[in-house]
Amino acid sequence: MNIALILAYNGTNYHGWQVQKNGSSIQETLTGAAARLLGQPVSVSGAGRTDAGVHARRYVANFHADCTIPMPRLPLALNAQLPEDIAVSGAAVVPEGFDARFDCTKKEYAYYLYPSRLRDPFLSGRAYRYPYPLDIERMQAGAQFFVGKQDFAAVRSIGTPVKSTVRTIFHCEVEPCEDNLIRIRVCGDGFLYNMVRAIAGTLTYVGSGKLAPADVRVILDSRSRENAGPTLPACGLFLNRLWYDHTPELDPFPLH
Amino acid sequence: MNIALILAYNGTNYHGWQVQKNGSSIQETLTGAAARLLGQPVSVSGAGRTDAGVHARRYVANFHADCTIPMPRLPLALNAQLPEDIAVSGAAVVPEGFDARFDCTKKEYAYYLYPSRLRDPFLSGRAYRYPYPLDIERMQAGAQFFVGKQDFAAVRSIGTPVKSTVRTIFHCEVEPCEDNLIRIRVCGDGFLYNMVRAIAGTLTYVGSGKLAPADVRVILDSRSRENAGPTLPACGLFLNRLWYDHTPELDPFPLH
Repeated sequence: MNIALILAYNGTNYHGWQVQKNGSSIQETLTGAAARLLGQPVSVSGAGRTDAGVHARRYVANFHADCTIPMPRLPLALNAQLPEDIAVSGAAVVPEGFDARFDCTKKEYAYYLYPSRLRDPFLSGRAYRYPYPLDIERMQAGAQFFVGKQDFAAVRSIGTPVKSTVRTIFHCEVEPCEDNLIRIRVCGDGFLYNMVRAIAGTLTYVGSGKLAPADVRVILDSRSRENAGPTLPACGLFLNRLWYDHTPELDPFPLH
Repeated sequence: MNIALILAYNGTNYHGWQVQKNGSSIQETLTGAAARLLGQPVSVSGAGRTDAGVHARRYVANFHADCTIPMPRLPLALNAQLPEDIAVSGAAVVPEGFDARFDCTKKEYAYYLYPSRLRDPFLSGRAYRYPYPLDIERMQAGAQFFVGKQDFAAVRSIGTPVKSTVRTIFHCEVEPCEDNLIRIRVCGDGFLYNMVRAIAGTLTYVGSGKLAPADVRVILDSRSRENAGPTLPACGLFLNRLWYDHTPELDPFPLH
């Protein structure tokens, strides 16, 4: 049977989702836990490759295996095999053809940062400290220029070659939240390498006054990475939400 | 001169505030940072001994030293010498006789917990997961029996001998907060060993229905530790606020 899992992970101590030669990965840790629990080799496919230090509040993975454990009990059984920083919250049998990566139609990332001269020891590893004041309304105005189907060459790092640098961003929202944090949510049909971290870096330049909101339009049109803001550190980035069409089995699992 | 510092720390990786033989402490780390920065031996006194794994959102320490660095610059200068999990947010010259421990008149602790069958990897190390549902209104009703000047022998662990087990609790409030967390705030003129963790454990019994709110009265009157709930783990406990009389220099420093 084809089993889909909903999970969350704190990526601080991992070299990203994908199996790496030089360090432990979420994929490897989850694969090992499922194989031990079910007593058979499994191959776990994930919704996307998150980089070293990046977190996921809601991630979907799937694997094919024989499993006699009822689905409602599978999360707790898997969690008993997993370290504290990875937690499975839901499991469902999905159609044989379902693939967590290829069937994902939309993703939302959230980038958390806080403007402060002083670090907050309780935000370490899960938010980026920006050392200057930030104007959230300006950032929100600048963020709207990222929305739409357009070329995002100006806000990506050079990684694996891609056919096209055109992507569709459905929304980009800058909001205050608890603990003096600012959250930047970016939802799209796909993302280029380091794209959200470069969008967040560009919005810090807008928020601190180095750029005007409308400069984002000019930067995107230039297609030149050097015109945009910096790529912010991985620690503030969370894969926040995933969308799958025609897979009602994955409809909101409670996170708690 | 006598210098007071306001600081916060994530206690996860420390053996508590006080210098220990068997592991690193906040006191030792802060003492080392101040001595390196000022080029002289210093002796740092702290507001209280927090146990291994316990955090502080707002802590006060003081030391006597010669210091030519202006007070507004001292926090950043010290933070450059400190690890990520300790952060100084304010510094002030205080009267020669001021002592962070003996002049503290009231303390507030906060205990954070979340009721869930499933762990949250982002709350690990800073909140306790309670595996059953909790009724916050019942907990709040039970909490009121802890308020007042009374004998707290039923909610302490045996530690260093104390002259009296009578303390005054000024408030005890159970409140919902972000991320499905429940916060228990306890403010008093002093606390017995593990007292807040035993109060929190007793309130989980009230919240899950094992005890009625009014049973707290009976438990306190019994003066017997075995009648109360469990001592909850250190990870959920934060020293939250401190009060000093006649020391306007310590009036609210901004945390950010």
